[in-house]
Amino acid sequence: MVATFRPGPDHIAFPGYVYGGLIASLIDCHAMATAAAAAEGEGSGEAPRFVTGSLQVDYLRPTPHGEDLELRARAVEVGPRKVIVEVDLSARGEVRARGRAVAVRMPEAMVPAAG
Amino acid sequence: MVATFRPGPDHIAFPGYVYGGLIASLIDCHAMATAAAAAEGEGSGEAPRFVTGSLQVDYLRPTPHGEDLELRARAVEVGPRKVIVEVDLSARGEVRARGRAVAVRMPEAMVPAAG
Repeated sequence: MVATFRPGPDHIAFPGYVYGGLIASLIDCHAMATAAAAAEGEGSGEAPRFVTGSLQVDYLRPTPHGEDLELRARAVEVGPRKVIVEVDLSARGEVRARGRAVAVRMPEAMVPAAG
Repeated sequence: MVATFRPGPDHIAFPGYVYGGLIASLIDCHAMATAAAAAEGEGSGEAPRFVTGSLQVDYLRPTPHGEDLELRARAVEVGPRKVIVEVDLSARGEVRARGRAVAVRMPEAMVPAAG
């Protein structure tokens, strides 16, 4: 799965660079969406919801502010309860951060009631 | 180092729970502050700035929304270039997420000029 995001003025760590917490948030969010899509492909057609079991992010080089960020994710392991997703975050064609997330199927107790 | 934070309405994953990206951001931010404080204790008295080299977060149990979150961090390794920090994030007296961050002294090229 590929997505792009343009950070805004709230997402600056210090002049010229994107804040690491935003990078972790984008990787987390994109990994959960990828896990749901991967699990949907294997199942009934209804995308299950996932929560983050763990998240690892390696910040390889600084991420410049004022650019589109590209997120590319792939599900590397799809199990009945867990999906493992790897995500690369790039700017100006270079990978800036690499993440690995364990997505866990949402426990029944957390699923919001249908509105 | 201990800090507390009360998430706002933008920080909800789905009703009743705090978004995992915010949890990662809080752990990251608190770890970098703890690294700076630890390095300051060993050095000249001026706190150096740190950037995140890597971040690992284990989400142990859901984090309820509408509560104060408590962050407790300790520097477990303080080197000349890197500080390793462990952080517990708790709500209602229970640890909800545990993080480990490698803080790297900010490269000279990234340090903003004094204003």
